Amino acid sequence: MKIEKKELVDELIERSLKGEKLSISRLISLVERRDEYAPYIMEKIAPHAGRAYYIGVTGPPGAGKSTTVDRLIGMFCKNNLSVGVIAVDPSSPFSGGSLLGDRVRMNVKSEKMDVFIRSMSSGRVMGGLARTSKEAARILDACGKQIIIIETVGVGQSELDIAEATDTVLVILTPESGDSIQIMKAGLMEIADIFVVNKADRPGAEDISTSIRGMLKRSLRKRDWDPQIFLTSASVSKGMDDLYAGIWSHYDHLTENLRLEERRKRQLRQELHTRIENEFAKILWDMVQKKDIDQVVLDTWLRRADPQNTAQQFVLSSLKESGLWPQKQ
Amino acid sequence: MKIEKKELVDELIERSLKGEKLSISRLISLVERRDEYAPYIMEKIAPHAGRAYYIGVTGPPGAGKSTTVDRLIGMFCKNNLSVGVIAVDPSSPFSGGSLLGDRVRMNVKSEKMDVFIRSMSSGRVMGGLARTSKEAARILDACGKQIIIIETVGVGQSELDIAEATDTVLVILTPESGDSIQIMKAGLMEIADIFVVNKADRPGAEDISTSIRGMLKRSLRKRDWDPQIFLTSASVSKGMDDLYAGIWSHYDHLTENLRLEERRKRQLRQELHTRIENEFAKILWDMVQKKDIDQVVLDTWLRRADPQNTAQQFVLSSLKESGLWPQKQ
Repeated sequence: MKIEKKELVDELIERSLKGEKLSISRLISLVERRDEYAPYIMEKIAPHAGRAYYIGVTGPPGAGKSTTVDRLIGMFCKNNLSVGVIAVDPSSPFSGGSLLGDRVRMNVKSEKMDVFIRSMSSGRVMGGLARTSKEAARILDACGKQIIIIETVGVGQSELDIAEATDTVLVILTPESGDSIQIMKAGLMEIADIFVVNKADRPGAEDISTSIRGMLKRSLRKRDWDPQIFLTSASVSKGMDDLYAGIWSHYDHLTENLRLEERRKRQLRQELHTRIENEFAKILWDMVQKKDIDQVVLDTWLRRADPQNTAQQFVLSSLKESGLWPQKQ
Repeated sequence: MKIEKKELVDELIERSLKGEKLSISRLISLVERRDEYAPYIMEKIAPHAGRAYYIGVTGPPGAGKSTTVDRLIGMFCKNNLSVGVIAVDPSSPFSGGSLLGDRVRMNVKSEKMDVFIRSMSSGRVMGGLARTSKEAARILDACGKQIIIIETVGVGQSELDIAEATDTVLVILTPESGDSIQIMKAGLMEIADIFVVNKADRPGAEDISTSIRGMLKRSLRKRDWDPQIFLTSASVSKGMDDLYAGIWSHYDHLTENLRLEERRKRQLRQELHTRIENEFAKILWDMVQKKDIDQVVLDTWLRRADPQNTAQQFVLSSLKESGLWPQKQ
């Protein structure tokens, strides 16, 4: 039975690499639900990935991210580029499932064009960006999509994640978002390569552009790229040509002087760092008995001890007991 | 010199436990900047903590969190309760410092009443909740504050953190926040013990109450407490008496049937889990040479390998090389 499944997976991978949509979709599902073959799939896929141009789209709820992405898909397709989209849905941190359910998805005739759109719900791990959205993007990349768009709502941690997973980050705002995104801006400010003030026909569009420019000027971060600001009305396709050109001008900037390669190596280092820690943690929890933890919790509670010191002592004594002890100590 | 410093710290702790504000402030600063004595301080403080009632206040930017907290402070003080407030400022995830700077703080005559207010900027660790805000709250608790309020902006991860650090969670919204918090609500919905619709004199207050009630009904989460909804205008102190009573009715609910103890044990378990993982990770990175990591990054890049598999192999081979190997394997 095992062998049969491996053969099925191999065939799925082969068909996916040829661009077969149904196979790609099934492959992503296997990875998404952490199938036993997920690591195998990612291993086989990896050498084929790395050729696509990754674009991140983020911003507060209601800014028009989906509409903007719709328009961009159309423009990429018109230029004969194939597009893969990962749309990360926010979800409840407790239930693990998407509370909003399947959102009304983009108005794109995905049959006619080479477009693959996948919605994922965001888990707790890796902030707002879905646990497996990076893997899904990599699969789409390996399967020949030339443009990968990762779209996620810009709250909290997710904007950081998107900066670590893409080549160009678009932050989409509206004239109204001025006040309520005051806070998010801090984080968004630093990751944006391109700002889009959408719904720019509404009053206040110029004000928010000015305030973005002001914040950029005051920012102390060293940049080799001056983030650009575009005013759009995505729903009526206004300003989209300029935005499209702006995206490509950032791409040109990246491909000069190996900047793209450096950015991706930096991201890879970060990703490896996180994954190594997670792997190590897995070994730890495998080693530790559930009753040991119960005992520590109870003991800390009864002694009114400080959790940090308790944690430290617990790790050291676990390592000693298991005969595991860092050589250096 | 070391001994001198230890004596100074001991004196600081002693004075703090007596309630001396300046000492408390200096103690928190030592912990906040991770002084070498920070673990020692937390160890000495821990046995004195656990007596206060912890209230979390969260919600989107501009909802009136500070004003509401101001009013609550006044009411607690009128009832002869001492109050400690930790206000977590959002900050840029890259720079580490607060971009907004010291915000215009609450309009409270903190001289007359027994109130201690501390602003902290939120770091990357532990989501939006400041790395050390839990420790600061614990210090205030140990130093005799009877009510601890942790106030943080409700974006992304921070609402989860606040649910794990407090006994009662207030989620503050406004009639206007309906649309823009659509997304956050998913997370906020599940952690709120009490909803506050502030600025309720504006149109739409009833609408948002109705929609909260609807979401609560549709929620599948098992609850032993029905979250209450209060309409307030904190700036003119309207509705505050009801809210104040509502907070105490949740406290009464908690203290029945050991619910408070169970909630805190659950939180302690979660905190220990995180801290144990962090301690273990520290040992890992201590063990691993920087050049090893550089090599892995380069190797993964050149072979176009899958980061997950690489990470796994790296951890296993590091453990083997160091003579560390889980007994079970």
